[in-house]
Parts: sequence; C-alpha cells; structure tokens
Amino acid sequence: MLLPHFVALVAVSLVSCSPSYSHPQIHASPSCTETTSKPESPTPGNGSWFMPPPASGEGMWPWHDLSRLDESKLRHRGLAVSLSDLWTPGKGGLLRAVAGLQGCSASFVSSDGLLITNHHCVHRAIQRNSTPGRDYLSDGFVAKTRADELPGLGTLVYVFQRQSDVTSRILDTLDSSLTDLQRLKEIERRESMLVRECESKPNMRCEVARENDGLRFMMLENTELKDVRLVAFPPESLGNYGGEIDNWHWPRHTLDFAILRAYVKPSGEPAEYDGANVPYHPDTYLTVSELFPTPPSLVMVAGKPGKTRRYAHHTEVEDALEWYYPFRDSLYTAWIEALERGAGDDPAARLVVSSWLRRLNNGLFHARGMIKGLRANGAVERARRRDEALRAWISEKPERAARYASVLDDLENHLRASRETRQKDQLLGALVSGAQVFGFSRRIVKWAAQREKPDDVREPGYQDRDRDTVRRELEQAQRSLHLDSDRAVMRLMVQRLCALAPHERPGALLGPEGLPCEADQLQKKLRELYQGTKLGMIQGRLDAFGLGLDELRRSKDPMIQLALRVSQEFDDLDRRNQEREGARIRLERPYLQALIAFRGKAFYPDANSTPRISFAHVAGYAPQDGVWHIPQTTFRGMLDKHTGSPPFQVPEMLFRAFENQAFGQYADPSGADVPLCFLSNADTTGGNSGSPVLDGTGKMVGLNFDRVFENIAGDYGYNPDRSRNVMVSTRAILWYLQHVVQAYPLVSEIRSTHP
Amino acid sequence: MLLPHFVALVAVSLVSCSPSYSHPQIHASPSCTETTSKPESPTPGNGSWFMPPPASGEGMWPWHDLSRLDESKLRHRGLAVSLSDLWTPGKGGLLRAVAGLQGCSASFVSSDGLLITNHHCVHRAIQRNSTPGRDYLSDGFVAKTRADELPGLGTLVYVFQRQSDVTSRILDTLDSSLTDLQRLKEIERRESMLVRECESKPNMRCEVARENDGLRFMMLENTELKDVRLVAFPPESLGNYGGEIDNWHWPRHTLDFAILRAYVKPSGEPAEYDGANVPYHPDTYLTVSELFPTPPSLVMVAGKPGKTRRYAHHTEVEDALEWYYPFRDSLYTAWIEALERGAGDDPAARLVVSSWLRRLNNGLFHARGMIKGLRANGAVERARRRDEALRAWISEKPERAARYASVLDDLENHLRASRETRQKDQLLGALVSGAQVFGFSRRIVKWAAQREKPDDVREPGYQDRDRDTVRRELEQAQRSLHLDSDRAVMRLMVQRLCALAPHERPGALLGPEGLPCEADQLQKKLRELYQGTKLGMIQGRLDAFGLGLDELRRSKDPMIQLALRVSQEFDDLDRRNQEREGARIRLERPYLQALIAFRGKAFYPDANSTPRISFAHVAGYAPQDGVWHIPQTTFRGMLDKHTGSPPFQVPEMLFRAFENQAFGQYADPSGADVPLCFLSNADTTGGNSGSPVLDGTGKMVGLNFDRVFENIAGDYGYNPDRSRNVMVSTRAILWYLQHVVQAYPLVSEIRSTHP
Repeated sequence: MLLPHFVALVAVSLVSCSPSYSHPQIHASPSCTETTSKPESPTPGNGSWFMPPPASGEGMWPWHDLSRLDESKLRHRGLAVSLSDLWTPGKGGLLRAVAGLQGCSASFVSSDGLLITNHHCVHRAIQRNSTPGRDYLSDGFVAKTRADELPGLGTLVYVFQRQSDVTSRILDTLDSSLTDLQRLKEIERRESMLVRECESKPNMRCEVARENDGLRFMMLENTELKDVRLVAFPPESLGNYGGEIDNWHWPRHTLDFAILRAYVKPSGEPAEYDGANVPYHPDTYLTVSELFPTPPSLVMVAGKPGKTRRYAHHTEVEDALEWYYPFRDSLYTAWIEALERGAGDDPAARLVVSSWLRRLNNGLFHARGMIKGLRANGAVERARRRDEALRAWISEKPERAARYASVLDDLENHLRASRETRQKDQLLGALVSGAQVFGFSRRIVKWAAQREKPDDVREPGYQDRDRDTVRRELEQAQRSLHLDSDRAVMRLMVQRLCALAPHERPGALLGPEGLPCEADQLQKKLRELYQGTKLGMIQGRLDAFGLGLDELRRSKDPMIQLALRVSQEFDDLDRRNQEREGARIRLERPYLQALIAFRGKAFYPDANSTPRISFAHVAGYAPQDGVWHIPQTTFRGMLDKHTGSPPFQVPEMLFRAFENQAFGQYADPSGADVPLCFLSNADTTGGNSGSPVLDGTGKMVGLNFDRVFENIAGDYGYNPDRSRNVMVSTRAILWYLQHVVQAYPLVSEIRSTHP
Repeated sequence: MLLPHFVALVAVSLVSCSPSYSHPQIHASPSCTETTSKPESPTPGNGSWFMPPPASGEGMWPWHDLSRLDESKLRHRGLAVSLSDLWTPGKGGLLRAVAGLQGCSASFVSSDGLLITNHHCVHRAIQRNSTPGRDYLSDGFVAKTRADELPGLGTLVYVFQRQSDVTSRILDTLDSSLTDLQRLKEIERRESMLVRECESKPNMRCEVARENDGLRFMMLENTELKDVRLVAFPPESLGNYGGEIDNWHWPRHTLDFAILRAYVKPSGEPAEYDGANVPYHPDTYLTVSELFPTPPSLVMVAGKPGKTRRYAHHTEVEDALEWYYPFRDSLYTAWIEALERGAGDDPAARLVVSSWLRRLNNGLFHARGMIKGLRANGAVERARRRDEALRAWISEKPERAARYASVLDDLENHLRASRETRQKDQLLGALVSGAQVFGFSRRIVKWAAQREKPDDVREPGYQDRDRDTVRRELEQAQRSLHLDSDRAVMRLMVQRLCALAPHERPGALLGPEGLPCEADQLQKKLRELYQGTKLGMIQGRLDAFGLGLDELRRSKDPMIQLALRVSQEFDDLDRRNQEREGARIRLERPYLQALIAFRGKAFYPDANSTPRISFAHVAGYAPQDGVWHIPQTTFRGMLDKHTGSPPFQVPEMLFRAFENQAFGQYADPSGADVPLCFLSNADTTGGNSGSPVLDGTGKMVGLNFDRVFENIAGDYGYNPDRSRNVMVSTRAILWYLQHVVQAYPLVSEIRSTHP
C-alpha cells in the first residue's frame, strides 16, 4: 500500500526547516528551527540545560486515537507536523515507518528496506551469527556489500498496517452466566476467529490486542517480514558500553544501535531467508537528521511499549512492592548464579548463556529499582487514596452506586484470592521458561494434547498457524542452550519448589515418581534426565515435535516421560492463569470504566505492545538531592570513562578518530567532540527499545534505548520529575558510521535517498 | 593576650548585616545581605545554582601575608570585612578564633571555650571514651551539664598567637660546603635553638615551619591547651553518614561535627585534665550564623591545610602517578585485609581497630583518586611543559642562566637517585607505624640512644621537651591496639620486605638472627615475639621508656631485642630520610625562586600545616559529562538515602523530628526540610578538616570536612572546574542541636553569648 501523500509530507517537513520558514503559532521554539542554528553546549549557567521540561510527557497514545489530542496545544509545544499526517486511522501516515521487532521497536530509514533498532534488540541474532572463531559481539560488523549482510536467524519485523476496534464483536452476546474460564475460552475463540478471518488476506499477521484487560479489543494487522538481515552494528563494547554498571543509569555513553535490512521475494511477497530475495520497499521511511536536539525541544517517541499498570488497584500495587518484586529479586539472583556456575570458565559456554545473563541482570536491576521506586513514589499509598476517592465518588450518587457499587471490592477480593498459589505458580512458570530442555518437553507434550482438539478451540500458540513459529523456536533455541547451565537452572527451580509449604508443593512433580527433594538424589536424578534425553539436540526436538500423545507415551526419553507425568500439574497452572485472565476481563473493565468516568480527563490505555506515541521534551532532571542530570553526553565523556577493561573498553578505532580529529559536520561547538546521548521526559517502557525519536518536524533525531533508574517504577505512575528516557542521537550514529568505521555507502543510503 | 579591638570587630560585623547597612563597593552581593533574605531553593532553572563560580578560589594564603592580596578585588567578590581585621601580623584578628587540633582545624564559638570541629577529627577520642557497654560512637552524646563533659584523652588544641619570618636566622652564615646531612642537622639545631628560646615564654609551644622546603622559615607560636573535653557530637551514623561509600563524594549528607570545650587552671594557665580546671576564655570567637549560604556568595575557609605539592618538579609528579600512589594502593589494600582478618568477628576488637580502618580506607580511596585525577588532569605533562618553559626562560638571559642554570637538572637528578631505596624505605616506615608494638620498641630504643647525646643535638621528637608527649602517646595508643591485628600487620610488612630483590632487603631485620621469610616460620616467630613482649601493655611500655641503652640491652623482652638488633637499619633509614630532606632544602629553594621569578604573579607557598585562608565562592560543578552537582543538600535527601543498614542508617530521633515537623527557623523555603551540606571552590586539603567556613562578614556558616573525589589530585594543581570542598552548614548543626537532641543550653551558649 503506497501512500503518496507521504512523500509530500516529507518534502513539507524539509521545507519547514529552511530558514525562511516560520510558524506564528509556535512560541516554544520548535526543534527544527532551534537545532538548525549552531547547537549550544551545556555549559554551566546556560539556562535551558537546567530547566524543567515545559510540559509533561505523560501519555502513551494509541496512533488510532491521535484525534483525541489537543493539536493546538501540541503546536504550541513545538509540533510542526499535523497529527493526521503522523497517523490517520484507515489511511496511515509517517508512523508506518515505525515497525515492531519481537519485543522491540524499529524504523525504516531508506527506500531499500534499511531498518534501525537497538543493538540489544538484535543481541541474540548477533550472538547466533557468532562463533568462538568469529565473534561479532567483540568485533562489530559492517557489511561491505549487500551480499555480505548476515542472516537475521529468527529476527522478524512487523510492519503495522491498520487497526480497528472489534470490542463489540468480542463482547456482544457474551453469556453473563459463563464461568471465568468459559468466558476466556469464548473470548479467545472469538479472537481466533477474527484473527483467522484477518489472516486470510495474504501475508498478513493479525492479533487482537486487549486494552486494559478488555476495556477495548483492537484488531491489529501487520505484514510479517521474515528475511531481515544484519547490515551494521558496533562491537558490544560500544553497543553495550557501561554494561550492567551503566544500565538504567545516566550519564550514559552507549552506542546502542544496529542497522538491518528487510528482504522479500522479487514479487514483493514476504519470505524466509533466501539468496534470491530482494530488498523490501517500505511505503514510507524516516528522514534521519544529523541535528542534536537540545532542551526544551519537542520530541516524539513512537513504538510498541510493552506493559504498564497505571490504573492498577492498590492491592495489586501493594503485591508488587511487598511480594512480587522481592520474590523476583531473590529468584533472579540465584538464577544468575546457577547459570554462571553452570557455564564456568568455558568461553564458548559463556557466549551461549550471555543473552540469558543479560536479560536476568536487567530483570534483577529492574526488580530492585521497582522496589525502591514504588517506595520512593509512595505508590501504594497513592493508589489507595485514589481508590478511596473513587469509592467516595461512586457512593455519592445512586446511579453511580447502581452501576459501580461492587467494582472495587470485587477486584480486591480477586487479587487477594490470587495470592494463595502465587509462589508455586511463579516457580512452575520459571521452570518451563528457564529450564529450557524441560520447557521443550512440556511444549511438545502440550502440543500433542492440544492437537487432539479442533484447531479453533485450541489455546493460542497451539494452533496450526503457530506450527512454523514453534518449530523455528525449537531449532533456534539451541544457540542459547548450554546443557550444564540448563541443568543448574532446573535444579534451582526444583529446590525452590521443594522449599514450599507441603500443601503448596506440586505433588506430581515432586512425588515419589517425580523428582526427589534431597540434594544429592536430585543432582543424580537430573544428571540421568539430561544424559537420557534427546531434547537437548535440535534433531531430537524436531523429531518429537508433532508426535501424537500415544507416540509420546511410548517414547523412552525420560524428559518426555517427566513432562507427561506432570502434564496435569502444568495444565492446572495454565488453567489457573486462564481463570485469572478471565476474571480480570470480567473485573477490570467496570473498574476502569468507573475510574475513567471519575477522572473525567483524556484517557490513554496501559501499554500493551501496540503502536503508541508519546509527545515529550528534551529535559534533564534531579535524580536525587544535590545532583542535576544534564540531558546530553558526548563521546569525550565516553573516553573519560574508559578503563581498558569491560564494560568500559573503548575500541582503538574510536580513539583514533579522536586523535585524527575526524569529526566532520558532526562536531559539537567545541570542534573537538561529538554529542552522543540525550534525555527526554517521554512516557516509555520496555518494548520502546529501538523506538525512533522524532523532532517536531517528524525527522528522526534519536533512538530510544533505556529509561533512568528513577523511572523504573514509572510503570505504575508517570512522575513528571523523574520519568526520563535515554536515547542515542542519530548524530552520534551517523558520525560513528561515517568517521569511525567509514561505512560510506551505508551513510549515503541513509542520508541521500530521499526524493 | 586579650585583643580588645576584636570585640569591636565582631560588633561591626553584626551591624554590617543589619538591613540598613550597605557597601557601595560590593556588586557581587555579599552573603550577608543575600542570606538574610529568604534563601532560594535549588529548583531547576534557578540560575545561580547552576552557575560556575564568579572567581577562582585558588590560593591557601598564609595569614601573615594577607596584605599581599588585592583587597578591592576581594571586596568586589563579596568580602565585607577588612583583611587587616581578619589578621594583622603582630596584632592578630578574627582568625585567632581558628585553632589547630592535631592534624585538623577547629574554632572557638563561645567565650567559655566552646570549640567546633569535625566528628572525624575526634573519632579516636570518642572511641577511647567508649566501651562495649557504653558505645558513644553508636549513641552520640550531649553533656547535660559541664560536669558531664567527657575527657578528651589526648585531644590537644593549639591556639595560634603569632608568626615571624626567621629565614635569615636559619640560613645566614650556613657553610656552603656542608653535606646534605650536615646542613640538615645544622638547620635543625638552629631551629631547635629558636624553638627553645621561644618556648621560654610560659605555656608556649613553638615550631619552625618550612615553606616549600626552606624557601622561607617561619616561627609559629601557639598556646597548647591540654584539657579539651567532648561536649556534644552526633552518633557515628550521622557524623559519618554514608561512610566509605560517600566519603570523598557529592552529594553528601554527613553531619560531621563535634563540640568541645577547652579548660585551663583557674589561674588561666593551660594544664592537663583536672576536675578543678575552668573553661578557657579565648581572646575572640566566631559568631555562628543560622543562614545557609547560596551561590555565588563569597566564603572563606580558614585552618591548617597539611600538605600540597603545587610546584613539584615533573619527575616528582611522574613518580607520584607511576609509583607512589600505585604502591600505596596495593599496600593499603593488604593492610586493611590484615587488620580485618586479625580482628575477626569480635565486636570489641573491631571497635579497637576502627580508627585504623577508617584512616586506611580513606588513604586507599585517596590513592586511587590521585591516580585517576593526576591522569585526568594530565598533571605530569603539564608539569613537564612548565619545567620546559622555565628552562627556556632561564636560558633566555645570561643573568638568569648564571643564577639558575642547573636548578632543574640538580633537582631531577636528586629525584631520580631517590628511587633506588624507595620501596624498602616505604615498607620500613610502614612497619614502624603500622606494627605498633614493634614501633613502640623502636621508639624506646631510639629514645635511649638519643638520650646519650646533648639535648640540643638530638633529633626533633627526641628532646627533653618531647618526653611528656611520647609518654602520653605510649599510654594512649593502647586504645587502638589489638594484638592479633597488630601481629597480622607486622607479618604483612615483613612479607613485603621479603619479596624485595635481594640487594634491597634489609639484612639485619631479615637475616639469620632476625625474622625468617618462610611463611610458617615467620608466623611462629611472630607468635613468640608477641607472646614474649611486655610492650603490648601500657605498663610494660612505660617501664621500658626512659631506660638507658645498657639497661635495654639486658632486657629479656624479645621485641626490645629485635629493635636493638635492627637499630642500625632504622638509623640508616632515618639518615636517608634526613639526607633527602637536607638535599631538598638545598635544591628546592633555588628552583622555587626561579619559578616565582618566571611566573611573576602573587605566590602562595604549598600547604605545610600552618594557618592559611582561602577566599572562595559557593559553587557547584560538573563531575563528569552529563552531570551537574548542585551545591546544596538537605536532611530530606539524607532520609532518602536511608536503607536501614550502615552506613545509611538514620537514627529514629531524626525521623521523629521530621514527623513532628520540628524545623523551627531552620526550615528551608519548602517549610518541610532543612538544608544540610554545601560546596565551594575553596582551596583546601587534608588538615582543613574542621576548618570554619566564614561568610563575607566573618560569620561562621559552615564546617569544612571533605573534598570531592574529582579534587583529590588538586594537591598537585588547583583545577577551577573541579576543585571543590564539602562543608556541613552551621544551620544544619544548630537545627540538630536544637530540634533533634534538644541541647538547649548548648545552643543558647553558641547563639547568645555575644556582647
């Protein structure tokens, strides 16, 4: 679908930056006119670097809902394109250049399908291309020619096409007497039906996304691109500079980017990796700016934020602070320890588990930041006060009482009841996800069990359409599977389950036929399991995948036998999860409706991995008493942090570029440095990794890659003083590509293909 | 000596803060008039909090030399008292309120002899008053009545009276053919003579202080006060809040103060602790302000900075960076480990070694900061360029060449020659200072040896006048002596000496009659030494101290026998140190004279523990790319850091004061907080701990207690961007005393005794 109006928009935005252009409505100088003038350095006393942002950046607005916003207010804040040019439902807009990339965001930056995203979003793909002999994580990569681009090995890009509200098709005529489980099943059935209907269009991947557990159901249509190749990325020493020490922190000096290219069949049809494929031509793509945005410029962060809980009942916030995150802190600490012990000093093993370690360390730090932040923000108390005010508001008028009387109590009772099995449920969940070989086995067994039902009543993820995805995952998981580490993780999870109170323990798993709790016996039993199973190898998994239940029952593989034996335990777990999901759909909707009516202001739904945009400003903040974080870092600051050992090891080539003063047009006002990262008050969360950051004219000026530590608890409530996200500037990326690794054809493709 | 003009000065300074007072010369608003208006908060964008200081704070000016300064410039910067009122040679001034306190500074703040200094300056005295049953470090202390004040146990205060330039009396008629050792001995003889002459006045303690190794010799006369009691101090949890984590850092939330009182005989004569003593009445004392100074107010830091090397030859700076501080880093790391291992988990032992650990940790961090800072500042290169420029300047004109031709080469050759024995010399020094029991033994033996010479040719520290001091030290050292830890330290030093190249090893110490290098044998031998010696007990030391050499030779004490056996080794060490000292006097003087002539601007000598003052401004700074340190913290920030475990454990009483909103007139503009610490660009170093910080009118607004990490290498060169010192405000101290511990009589004595 070509959108010719879009080429025009880009042209307009180019014109809008010419010196003759001016817009009488804009009094907060738009970044366009501001940044074309020589940018100023954050020298002390230079006012704007130390100013609070001129407006809050709160709100992750669905593209679908942009017309709800007050456009004139945004124009006053510096927006120089119209909201309808960004996105018009049913028509599209500039934001179509923003795509999804498995838990991350990405954006098209050339007509030949170049994409830009974070280094950490393709870390696994880089790792999977690496061998101890050719370590792309250490060396970085620039494809000399298109033929040299590396395969994405599981990297998938989703090009968003449109969304539509299907709430009435899901909820209308739903029998109110259904149990929670029945309700969920019926909703899932309807969702599946709609998805199948939608996917009957060629090459379309569709999903029904629930906003706030069913306040609204949205059908999202995406084109799935399966041949996505790695074109250029820096060594991990730059792409993850500062590592776990700087992660979630400011000041930041991380060149966290990677450039990809999407390929399709010569016919234009999406296809798996194939040498005969040709570059994908996106409908639109972003203009990449070399200008570094200074405060208080307006910036927009577009992408697919994963999950927030801004409207959570206070009991849920309390559970998060008092139980969930402390539990996660303890579990992840032990999990990391188990993986490290399992991998030992073997460099190959360490490379294999590095993705796991990275995610777990990130999650651990996140849990700790959440505990600290929820406490610092008084999040429980604030939610409690809000719920009390809501209760008072409901009881004020009979018609409100009639409609919402029990919403608060119903939700609270449900949340309290969920506490009973939460320890077991979390540990069983961690067992199937963390002990991968056992997880494969459970998946293969469940696949077989689900296959005995008609396709449309199977659970999501177990339908015929999912076969290729599961198969690919079973194959590619090998690259992050190290058997000794995997066994250590399985042991950890079983030990934790053994430590539960007797009535909580999963009997079938830990029973006389299952796994022993006594340490030496467990160790021995696990060794036998891992020695006896074929599921640790790709072929073993592919052979087992697709077998019927009877065939599996005849298998001699002890891991398959274990999964069969504990099948009911995990089915029960899945059922409990589904019941809770069903209950939430029943309970959250009226609670949210009451809350929306009570608050009476523009409502944005919680993040749910659907396309959103946040309107924000470049701005610093005070992380604590006595300190101000200035929203700019530079490469010189990166060199200052260099210690020579990871994670502060600047590669020789970057020192050389400084020695040679190879700064070109990217130099900062000093002439001897290049700006690197910046901060804004945009409303972001996990999933926004790789999100493009646009200036007021719609040009790309940065790439979102993190939030600050003080903003972790922002998922439970935006804090104007501390909600800040971290971005690497496109100016820094262009300088690196042009002057450090001399990737001239690539820079020229990014910079000069615009009509 | 009463100085009546001084009472007048204080009165003037009070008047100068009345609203009707104005001074036409002052355009940088003096802190007096500025802070009497409601102080502003460091809200983002509030300009002055983010401004660089209006002028450099470089220069530790001897009080003696204040007339060299440009007073009108200082008035423009905000000085509202005259320099001559601060100090006039031969006459005194307001600064007489600033005293010395064994390596620290302190100041009088009441007519009844109250003194204020840092908590860490009297840490040892607090520790010596503590027992496991009554732990003043944990509990803090406020004397209910004067009778409850705790003994200072070795705390000595030096009230500075006057200084005079005695250079010509030292250097004139010095025979140029003397060897370095002879020259030093002759200089020491002359110094001793002058000191004796000076101390013939009653109760006077005199010293000849060498500026820059003899550029100038100054006679300093002090009254020594020996009965100094502890009146009030916070628990260590506040006095050392943040501990080793926050030490040398900003932002800082440490209430690092202690209040003392000096006592004398009813006749006014200084005396040892005695119940019949009465409070000392100082000639003058400081007015303690409750106003918190905001940037860019002028502040003055007065005290006795210990040692800087601002004019060091580049070879010396190179040695510091490449050898001395790395050596110290390694040694202190092992030393700390030895003490901790020796003390084990025994709380009493840990209390005993805590002072040692604190000093060593401080030194370790200092060494690391020095290495980092010298490198970051390019200190070696800068010194090298300066020396090259000096060389060029010297060779420019024949008369310069005639006078200074060889100064650079002579100094460099000397520095290079000193490298030969530096490892052994440092380790032997650490052995006598760190292994205390061996140190006592060496001291007792040397005392006996020196006693055989006439008093005036003995080394400094071994003359009759030193007897009481040494005796007191031998007694009081017991409180920081834990024998197992001491033995572990001795073992460490001996092991390091054993690891030297054969030609460097001290033969007598490690020879067949001395200590074995083999690990088990050494361990066994040290056990025997410690079991056999009586020097681990006070009485044993006092019994041995004062014995003649022959008596010592007949002693059966194995530690005395060891000290006698290695006497020559340590005499040689002392001789080498003296030769180097003599050489420096010969070489540094012409080098400095050349440098002063070459630079042609006002010169301040390196810090040498003599009274100095720095004129500075309250100011923040950028510690690194992307961060600005705001020069104010608050108690709320302290509570934010509270974790419940040391070193971030706020005592209950402080939380209670916040709950009760007991802020009184000390509240900040929010009304719900109290300002705590601040920063300035004053030129300070170790020894400035406890220095009073005065505002432009001479009132005390703060108490210096630290520098920032980025300023450690400032000892080798003031850096306008990073040289910042850390102070606790008197406002914070007064609030604590009045509203947290309700020490009303004390607050009233501090605040209302002025005429």
